[in-house]
Amino acid sequence: MMEAIGRAARAAAADLAVAPARQRRQALEAAAGAVRADRRAILEANARDLAFGAERGLSAAMTDRLMLDEGRVGAIAAGLEAVAAQPDPLGAVIAEWEMPSGLHIERVRTPLGVIGVIYESRPNVTADAGALCLKSGNAVILRGGSESFHSSRALHFCLVAGLKAAGLPEAAIQLVPVRDRAAVSEMLRMVEHVDVIVPRGGRGLVGLVQAEARVPVFAHLEGICHVYVDRDADPEKARAVVLNAKTRRPGICGAAECLLVHRDVAATLGQRIVDDLIAAGVEVRAEGLRGSRPAEADDFGREFLDMIIAAKVVEDVDAAIAHIRAHGSGHTEAILTEDDATAARFFARLDSAILMRNASTQFADGGEFGMGAEIGIATGKLHARGPVGAEQLTSFKYLVTGNGTVRR
Amino acid sequence: MMEAIGRAARAAAADLAVAPARQRRQALEAAAGAVRADRRAILEANARDLAFGAERGLSAAMTDRLMLDEGRVGAIAAGLEAVAAQPDPLGAVIAEWEMPSGLHIERVRTPLGVIGVIYESRPNVTADAGALCLKSGNAVILRGGSESFHSSRALHFCLVAGLKAAGLPEAAIQLVPVRDRAAVSEMLRMVEHVDVIVPRGGRGLVGLVQAEARVPVFAHLEGICHVYVDRDADPEKARAVVLNAKTRRPGICGAAECLLVHRDVAATLGQRIVDDLIAAGVEVRAEGLRGSRPAEADDFGREFLDMIIAAKVVEDVDAAIAHIRAHGSGHTEAILTEDDATAARFFARLDSAILMRNASTQFADGGEFGMGAEIGIATGKLHARGPVGAEQLTSFKYLVTGNGTVRR
Repeated sequence: MMEAIGRAARAAAADLAVAPARQRRQALEAAAGAVRADRRAILEANARDLAFGAERGLSAAMTDRLMLDEGRVGAIAAGLEAVAAQPDPLGAVIAEWEMPSGLHIERVRTPLGVIGVIYESRPNVTADAGALCLKSGNAVILRGGSESFHSSRALHFCLVAGLKAAGLPEAAIQLVPVRDRAAVSEMLRMVEHVDVIVPRGGRGLVGLVQAEARVPVFAHLEGICHVYVDRDADPEKARAVVLNAKTRRPGICGAAECLLVHRDVAATLGQRIVDDLIAAGVEVRAEGLRGSRPAEADDFGREFLDMIIAAKVVEDVDAAIAHIRAHGSGHTEAILTEDDATAARFFARLDSAILMRNASTQFADGGEFGMGAEIGIATGKLHARGPVGAEQLTSFKYLVTGNGTVRR
Repeated sequence: MMEAIGRAARAAAADLAVAPARQRRQALEAAAGAVRADRRAILEANARDLAFGAERGLSAAMTDRLMLDEGRVGAIAAGLEAVAAQPDPLGAVIAEWEMPSGLHIERVRTPLGVIGVIYESRPNVTADAGALCLKSGNAVILRGGSESFHSSRALHFCLVAGLKAAGLPEAAIQLVPVRDRAAVSEMLRMVEHVDVIVPRGGRGLVGLVQAEARVPVFAHLEGICHVYVDRDADPEKARAVVLNAKTRRPGICGAAECLLVHRDVAATLGQRIVDDLIAAGVEVRAEGLRGSRPAEADDFGREFLDMIIAAKVVEDVDAAIAHIRAHGSGHTEAILTEDDATAARFFARLDSAILMRNASTQFADGGEFGMGAEIGIATGKLHARGPVGAEQLTSFKYLVTGNGTVRR
């Protein structure tokens, strides 16, 4: 079955690649309309998923991710419209030059082809991922979690309605209609039919995908984000940023998991920040600071995704850099400092996808980067890195024009 | 042993990433000087390889690829200087913008990290690939063919002399010092230490690398380049371009392997082009045209790399596009036409890395694209595509600056 889905996706991708921007936009707008019109059916489907989840004893956090209400369904429709309204990523001439041979060379943006998205319980990923792939002219194969099976199906139905309304092939957005895990394994190996896989979910899912995939993967395994408070940090900025980086939403990949403090300010500003965190309900596992409890070695390099943070005193910015190189996951790190040279050193000597100065790691997000929407965040160095928006889902080709030009 | 090489490369890459442009340029210039100074030793090493090749009955073509003389050694030195003189690909701010949150976001170019290059008999690849990787701030692990073992070693010695002269780590350019094949298999799986593999060689080598690699690969398996002569082709341009595309150097990946002719001009211009090719010594395997002999089904989609071409009459540009989609390898295709709409259709509906109008497919080359030098040509759609120069050997990271900025 996956073979047939893959072949249909490849064929649809060829049509999408030449579909004008207007037509892709129209499909997204029509899909948003369908979501609004079908909201009752979507909520009923979601109720079935919730009942199934309750039977299986789904955790409160998982249930919250799965749950849809009128507000969330409205947000899904608004999200589709927002993607529709974004500038078209395709067809743009990225670069253009003349050669002495007389050739005129253009580098133009093209879709990647077929994208596979494998995700867990959030049903809105069905709409978000489907929309971003369509916007960027790619066919997509969606494989949602079994927990959100009916909800995803109802949302997929609306996306297909949008495709039909715009005269685009239905196979441009396909949802794998089965609950078995074998479909995932097959998808990960379909190098003929799938150009890239984007896993959305926890470490378990992403690790499995990275280990098994023969198709290239855009992903991050973990977001072990560090915040380093330098000797030359502004105390008020540092306190506000660290608190926000940890507590605004502790469960997202951009949440801070480790606080590093320069030894010269450890007893003063550092301790104050730790006290702030504890007062906010965060468990601080500290080394060289008075925390909620002492840190164990394996608290460093750990993704808590919870109201817990590791904290440590370091010698200087180079020691912070060394610690991050040893324990980081290449996602996002922040420095708090008023010293330009120290900030420049931190920026130059670390190679995480995102480096921040005097700003919260919670900004690691496609929307906050102005990309409109994101399909995920990548920590690999090839092709896409950081937040992956519509533009990162494209490739390019060279268009070369001569006048009977031959090579000597 | 490969593990130690990989670890040393990773450590050298960290140093290279912060080495200024001047230092990398200085290393390349010093290496060029060393090649000139050591030319006698290089030629002696090459003589040993040639003697070993003669014993093993190396073909004339392979021997020519392997052979160095004063002129070729001079060209290698000049190549190193040309790469040194190119603009620095690193550190550039690719894009820069402000967000309403107050964040200033920069996207800056960074090295990829560690590149593995696996190649066959041409010893000059040692210098070219080493130079391009160093220019782009990457550490490189070179694994040359056993035929060019001593020549590559002598050239590698000069590259290391350049690194030393500039104060850069010697492990920035390593040559795998053994002849066994197991080293290649190990390299293809070192995802921890190698960021991308570039195979340079024939279909056998590239196919093996693509099948075995766990590390991403920049490559093209074959260059099955098509030239389509449209009804609205200018006859003189078409004759000149087809002849050049096939015969200038029939053994390179940008050489034309298949000629497609619109049926309305088959008997006139098409036949004339076939006659030109035959007169130039090309064997034309034709369908619907009077060639040297009739074409067999498997002559289409075949990479001859020789003075042989398949030729076929097609209904129109859409039939040409369909033929190329079915039989092409996504490398380079050319159209001969004076009609803008037909050219636009060919450009839009094909997704090869390079599409050409009224120009020879032999221009599919980094130098001819103005990249200075290339490490290879890629037909994949992720990251690098078409000629792979220094810029394509880079990644990027985001540098984000706030002022105590927190996310709501």
